[in-house]
Amino acid sequence: MTDSKPTIAVLGGTGDLGGGLAWQLVKAGYSVIIGSRTNEKGEAAAKALSERAGGTPVQGMDNPGAAAAAEIVVMTVPFANQMPTLETIRDQVQGKIFVDATVPLVPPKVMRVQLPEGGSAGMIAQAYLGENVRVVSAFQNVAAAHLQADEGHFDDCDVLVTGDDADAREQVVQFAQAIGMKAWHAGSINNSVVAEALTSVLIFMNKKYKIAGAGIKITGEPQV
Amino acid sequence: MTDSKPTIAVLGGTGDLGGGLAWQLVKAGYSVIIGSRTNEKGEAAAKALSERAGGTPVQGMDNPGAAAAAEIVVMTVPFANQMPTLETIRDQVQGKIFVDATVPLVPPKVMRVQLPEGGSAGMIAQAYLGENVRVVSAFQNVAAAHLQADEGHFDDCDVLVTGDDADAREQVVQFAQAIGMKAWHAGSINNSVVAEALTSVLIFMNKKYKIAGAGIKITGEPQV
Repeated sequence: MTDSKPTIAVLGGTGDLGGGLAWQLVKAGYSVIIGSRTNEKGEAAAKALSERAGGTPVQGMDNPGAAAAAEIVVMTVPFANQMPTLETIRDQVQGKIFVDATVPLVPPKVMRVQLPEGGSAGMIAQAYLGENVRVVSAFQNVAAAHLQADEGHFDDCDVLVTGDDADAREQVVQFAQAIGMKAWHAGSINNSVVAEALTSVLIFMNKKYKIAGAGIKITGEPQV
Repeated sequence: MTDSKPTIAVLGGTGDLGGGLAWQLVKAGYSVIIGSRTNEKGEAAAKALSERAGGTPVQGMDNPGAAAAAEIVVMTVPFANQMPTLETIRDQVQGKIFVDATVPLVPPKVMRVQLPEGGSAGMIAQAYLGENVRVVSAFQNVAAAHLQADEGHFDDCDVLVTGDDADAREQVVQFAQAIGMKAWHAGSINNSVVAEALTSVLIFMNKKYKIAGAGIKITGEPQV
């Protein structure tokens, strides 16, 4: 690998979060592959994104194809689709960095933290994909509306980046910062519990305090 | 109960967090009872606090006595002491508001989230004390150094207040705000997972980024 930017696949890239993330990555100069359940849906989303980006090439294909073709694979699917999607791309992500943005909400009580057996969605992904995949957890609390905007602004919510491999975390911190987010190393994959569970707290606060989109900022000045 | 301030017991009030919280509450005009493992330790801590507060009366006794005498009971003990302490005050807190500040750290890996069976310390307390006790979880991430200061300043870290009873949460939000903290209703006791687990993330960040004391702020402007 040279010092050029890595190719990033966004599985579930036809959804609000995934589509917005793909848009921001394209704008920041990354090669992006949209993954979806079918080649046709992936291609259609890629075509629309390419047009929005003034003709910048964007590839689209099904999730396994996108995962196979990319260096870093980001998955943004609903919790109910997490395991079914993981099953389709397990072989394709071996040896790679896999970024899980799954929020384990359990409708209808989405304001109540209900962590899954296995601890967290991030921990489930790491356990299922195996030690040859460097799983990183991030992006649970970024508002899709901000990601979809022409000029994303992400001052309202810092990104907690967790995972057992520090280099893999760093690569995710890098591309998050490249699209304008304040991203922090936040420890091992077990610590993904915080960002995942925080989502329910923020949904609660949005309702209780009538906030348009509550988020968190980490306070404290890094000395390194 | 009149509109006067409630009497608050601080169990584990001889520790850094509990002692600091007691000091801030005394300064804010609350009647405070220091609870400790023995009457003698409680009395000694109360005497020292009273002198620091210019002679304001402060009571001290053992934990069960303090819990029996107070209207609101706050517990600030290490995780290993949570259940042993709960066992001594279960009868005394029936019908009351019980505030649990326990952080379920599991040394030596304190930078790794390791939530207890039962979900969280707050959920453990609610399950053990029973439905006649209104358990509220709060204060996990307030720096003891700030609490111990002559003039506490708490701009660095908001307080997430969780519990199943909204009125009980509100009473805790009120006294937290009275001592200068920015406190938020954050949902049901299940949501205590966030503040408890966050502690490990903040410890990780303090080390990784050499921050003196990382904290969180909630972003978003309440409209109510």
